[in-house]
Amino acid sequence: MFFASDNWSGAHPKIAESLTKQAAGFASAYGSSELDKRIEAQFNDIFEREVAVFFVATGTAANSLALASVAKAGGVTFCHSDAHVNADEGGAPEFLTSACRLFPVEGDNGKMDREALHTAVSRFDVPSVHQGRPMAITVTQATEAGTVYTLEELDAIAAIAKSKNLPLHMDGARFANALVALDATPAEMTWKRGVDILSFGGTKNGCWCAEAIVFMKPEMAEEMPYIRKRSAQLFSKTRFISAQLEAYLEGDLWLDLARHSNAMADRLRVGLTAKNTARLAWETQANEVFAIIDKTSAARAQSKGAKFYDWLAPRDMPHMIGENERLVRLVTSFSTTQEEVDQFIEVV
Amino acid sequence: MFFASDNWSGAHPKIAESLTKQAAGFASAYGSSELDKRIEAQFNDIFEREVAVFFVATGTAANSLALASVAKAGGVTFCHSDAHVNADEGGAPEFLTSACRLFPVEGDNGKMDREALHTAVSRFDVPSVHQGRPMAITVTQATEAGTVYTLEELDAIAAIAKSKNLPLHMDGARFANALVALDATPAEMTWKRGVDILSFGGTKNGCWCAEAIVFMKPEMAEEMPYIRKRSAQLFSKTRFISAQLEAYLEGDLWLDLARHSNAMADRLRVGLTAKNTARLAWETQANEVFAIIDKTSAARAQSKGAKFYDWLAPRDMPHMIGENERLVRLVTSFSTTQEEVDQFIEVV
Amino acid sequence: MFFASDNWSGAHPKIAESLTKQAAGFASAYGSSELDKRIEAQFNDIFEREVAVFFVATGTAANSLALASVAKAGGVTFCHSDAHVNADEGGAPEFLTSACRLFPVEGDNGKMDREALHTAVSRFDVPSVHQGRPMAITVTQATEAGTVYTLEELDAIAAIAKSKNLPLHMDGARFANALVALDATPAEMTWKRGVDILSFGGTKNGCWCAEAIVFMKPEMAEEMPYIRKRSAQLFSKTRFISAQLEAYLEGDLWLDLARHSNAMADRLRVGLTAKNTARLAWETQANEVFAIIDKTSAARAQSKGAKFYDWLAPRDMPHMIGENERLVRLVTSFSTTQEEVDQFIEVV
Amino acid sequence: MFFASDNWSGAHPKIAESLTKQAAGFASAYGSSELDKRIEAQFNDIFEREVAVFFVATGTAANSLALASVAKAGGVTFCHSDAHVNADEGGAPEFLTSACRLFPVEGDNGKMDREALHTAVSRFDVPSVHQGRPMAITVTQATEAGTVYTLEELDAIAAIAKSKNLPLHMDGARFANALVALDATPAEMTWKRGVDILSFGGTKNGCWCAEAIVFMKPEMAEEMPYIRKRSAQLFSKTRFISAQLEAYLEGDLWLDLARHSNAMADRLRVGLTAKNTARLAWETQANEVFAIIDKTSAARAQSKGAKFYDWLAPRDMPHMIGENERLVRLVTSFSTTQEEVDQFIEVV
Repeated sequence: MFFASDNWSGAHPKIAESLTKQAAGFASAYGSSELDKRIEAQFNDIFEREVAVFFVATGTAANSLALASVAKAGGVTFCHSDAHVNADEGGAPEFLTSACRLFPVEGDNGKMDREALHTAVSRFDVPSVHQGRPMAITVTQATEAGTVYTLEELDAIAAIAKSKNLPLHMDGARFANALVALDATPAEMTWKRGVDILSFGGTKNGCWCAEAIVFMKPEMAEEMPYIRKRSAQLFSKTRFISAQLEAYLEGDLWLDLARHSNAMADRLRVGLTAKNTARLAWETQANEVFAIIDKTSAARAQSKGAKFYDWLAPRDMPHMIGENERLVRLVTSFSTTQEEVDQFIEVV
Repeated sequence: MFFASDNWSGAHPKIAESLTKQAAGFASAYGSSELDKRIEAQFNDIFEREVAVFFVATGTAANSLALASVAKAGGVTFCHSDAHVNADEGGAPEFLTSACRLFPVEGDNGKMDREALHTAVSRFDVPSVHQGRPMAITVTQATEAGTVYTLEELDAIAAIAKSKNLPLHMDGARFANALVALDATPAEMTWKRGVDILSFGGTKNGCWCAEAIVFMKPEMAEEMPYIRKRSAQLFSKTRFISAQLEAYLEGDLWLDLARHSNAMADRLRVGLTAKNTARLAWETQANEVFAIIDKTSAARAQSKGAKFYDWLAPRDMPHMIGENERLVRLVTSFSTTQEEVDQFIEVV
Repeated sequence: MFFASDNWSGAHPKIAESLTKQAAGFASAYGSSELDKRIEAQFNDIFEREVAVFFVATGTAANSLALASVAKAGGVTFCHSDAHVNADEGGAPEFLTSACRLFPVEGDNGKMDREALHTAVSRFDVPSVHQGRPMAITVTQATEAGTVYTLEELDAIAAIAKSKNLPLHMDGARFANALVALDATPAEMTWKRGVDILSFGGTKNGCWCAEAIVFMKPEMAEEMPYIRKRSAQLFSKTRFISAQLEAYLEGDLWLDLARHSNAMADRLRVGLTAKNTARLAWETQANEVFAIIDKTSAARAQSKGAKFYDWLAPRDMPHMIGENERLVRLVTSFSTTQEEVDQFIEVV
Repeated sequence: MFFASDNWSGAHPKIAESLTKQAAGFASAYGSSELDKRIEAQFNDIFEREVAVFFVATGTAANSLALASVAKAGGVTFCHSDAHVNADEGGAPEFLTSACRLFPVEGDNGKMDREALHTAVSRFDVPSVHQGRPMAITVTQATEAGTVYTLEELDAIAAIAKSKNLPLHMDGARFANALVALDATPAEMTWKRGVDILSFGGTKNGCWCAEAIVFMKPEMAEEMPYIRKRSAQLFSKTRFISAQLEAYLEGDLWLDLARHSNAMADRLRVGLTAKNTARLAWETQANEVFAIIDKTSAARAQSKGAKFYDWLAPRDMPHMIGENERLVRLVTSFSTTQEEVDQFIEVV
């Protein structure tokens, strides 16, 4: 009953197998091998346009270096207050952008409120060195609340970005989960909406370590090779990332894995709410269930081996959570089984 | 005939196998799993003392964050002018230390000259904010010239570090190659000599990606968890590093692999010099041969498929290299075969 | 009718005279002259303890380098959301601390709410590299809303700092104005309350350029000389700062000037509210009046030559300001005259 | 007998007077006052083209922010090994450029050797993220050795910059001294030679504190307002700089002052060499004499009150300096008198 995080899972057997297959032989380093080139080309196919792809070590690196590529002195990036960049990356976005700032924007369900975002960005309409200046908007898809922006919601945010002449970045640590939730294509959920730069995450969805920055307009990536090297994020044996991605993308394995983990989250949701065991803090739209459970039940589940984390309630939410309740985050992954889910529902 | 770099090789079969074995199941993330803990304990055994180990993504990250852990405003690190930190890391050591500087020191055979180092550090004996202040000495073992500091040479450098109250860092991207060259234990080549922090490299010696910073005194590592996270170098599924290292360290596989690649380099050296095909720029002491070859022979070898890079001659060496000659670097690895070596000697 | 900012004023005649007096002759540079030493000693007297004083170029530099002196990887500083560091320093605090972050805390009247601050800091009680870690609390005295923390309010904030083992910084860009408002001594308003580091501002109160960082515990200042030099904030001819401060501090000129500007603000307040010309956004406690004025009156005053800025209403305040009203900031200074004040009241 | 540094002098009486004159009244802040605008226009006249001018606090800031304006990830700036940026600025150029690096180039007489510079820059002709990439060349005029590049020598360096498509920066901490030494106009010594950005220093030549960055092509300065603010280098009461510069530039006072200090240095040179009291380390071309004096004479002068510093001999020079000799730097300034010079020659 492992619901602590999707990064508690290991790697999918096909991915392990692909690594094994590539272990032998020689290939040129630093992203220049044939396999690397093949994977790059595959990204073009997946996104239905020529894109520029850069592997990095972590999702935090993908987000931080994506922002570094559009950084400028006094630069300010707008994000949801619960966004990973703002809440969970230990200051890496600031550090790797040479101290650009994040401007948190509120909004329900883990999504930036359109009006709040517009107001926030508009505060900078009169140029002022004292205040700094907007440099980007970043949106998390799926969100940290387990919800998914609709295409229309993305359009609304992109419209603000466009009207203010700002690049739009998407943190896609759970990109696949969002895609299958919307039943959209990668193109539809990114550049067709106005997304310029994507953090493409594979680690949470069955890879060991496969994170990439994808530039929808390759000309925006010119500085990236130097930015990445300067941040010590250029792997030598990049084949070990490419080998993972080869299996990950092959036959849409990545979408199948995401469909599975979303389905497991939905099963969890259904089970928990059917019996009134839990209330939901937010709708379950991807692979995370945020459940408000009474303390006794939660403790019982833990005593039977269930693994999950309490979630810090957002500032405006505490009143929803009763004295005898806990807000817990339950994350499913490609390797979550129906049995685990059902067992959890039973013991909770 | 792949002699371009040891990072052109893939991964050792046992390492691939270990990854496959760990692919299933769940484990806690960010270095807290049982396997992670077991590997950490193994490092204590290997170094014969309690050490603190931090996995990072690249050798550049290991060096840069090691220096970041001892960084201070105006800080200056002394290194050989050809050291990887100075010549090949794209400014990462400066960037990740918030702009500390490197002070290049000359010396033959890729090794810092003892006197030159002492003179360099002593320039800072009178405190001055204008000049900055010493913060560390870093030594590369095996060196970028394919040589290996003797234990006595390390003692001499450590004595300077100690007399100036400076931490001593060792860039061990080819740590195993140096170890077996000296027939020394890890303890003998590090803390028993005065090394405080080690960049422990596994990638060049048969891993896919396994680099670690090892603090010989764990109390020096207190800031490291935050420094690493801030630099986006904290892997979530750290098991994928630990799994590699489990196989790497098991039964001294790592030392066997290094012995093999050193032996292949020696075979190359013997073959090339026996027939007077090449002169050596520096002694071959680890897994790199720096050969001065006439241009015709070099081109012939390349036309037959041999892969290697020309090496930029150090500033004080060009006179050794004739008009019709090239200085080439030939690197062997765990997967170099005798056949490859012999074939190369034949075609060159 | 210059109420745009206290930095629109020039320099007090005695300060100009002191500069002239020191123009001749030679003195050692970089803060080592006799005059520099004399001023340093005078700071000891003023603060009734041995302090360490560092001149810097701007108030922004004072705040930023004060924070840099306690910076650490992943570090987070708590401040009021309207604090100068957060709202008006163009990212300098983040940049000069190598990307430490600011955590805005709300509170009425420009003052951090005690509970809100406690809650904010306590979010970090469980150590987590993902979240970062508290590194300082900073308080602005007088505040950006023209109010002044009482000694008791400072005690409450200092208690939180102490309980969390955090250094407490005070942004004293209008230090003198706050001092005379409270009728407190410098010691009483700083270290006796628990303030560790002070940005001591003279520029807004009659100097040309005189900003200093004052460490209440000199041992906390050890890194400062290097931090300041690295940030290009070490003046060579420091006498030009010392000369200003000599006159500024002589015979408590600084307190007299602050008393005058506070009195002018009060006269403004009285005049504006007596005739119901304006409502006050916040109490006038130092040298700033935040007045809500109807648009016609404001425009009329401007047409007659009055200079002032509109103030961006804090997020939770807009409802107070009517459709036909403006929130304007009126700042008085050492050189504001009664005539100017009275004339403004008349025309508005 | 004050020859320690030109920054030991105070301010010229006319400059003090100008400050006094501007002390009264109000003016808008942050560089927007009429006086500020007037001084800006005067720079256009002096440079015979439209330039962009930015005041900063120190010469170190001018150099560092000039480089920051052309900084890029992995960027490398070429400078003489004794250049102020490399030897005396405590890491500020690296810190304020977010860790760009300096590449020291050797050359006699404090001037970069043309061939050595070309070789150094050409090392980067093959693009490589590992090595980094050239971002600027910086030249010091007058040099740290008290010499002055001829216009032809500047042309040669500019030609390298142009051929490599690199901006050329000039550190003009002693700009006026070099100008009068060459009898050139500001335009002739800067943009007519190919200089793009100038650090214009007034502090060493009779101002209290007047340093500016001058962009010969204003379009290169677009980022500068944000870069300067982010580095806490934007003065509020900029009038206090402008007031100094008004007097400084009025009637070519600045050139007269430089002529005087150069003449005093020459008198020193003549006196010292006439009597064979000293040998010269380098030619005296501006306001610095580098004299090799026997230890007894030097000590005698010091005992009689002469102030000067020993100079660390460059790495390739020590053999010139005998056992019983010292290399000392003697700097003259606008306020050095003939009497002082003659007295020194006598006592030494």
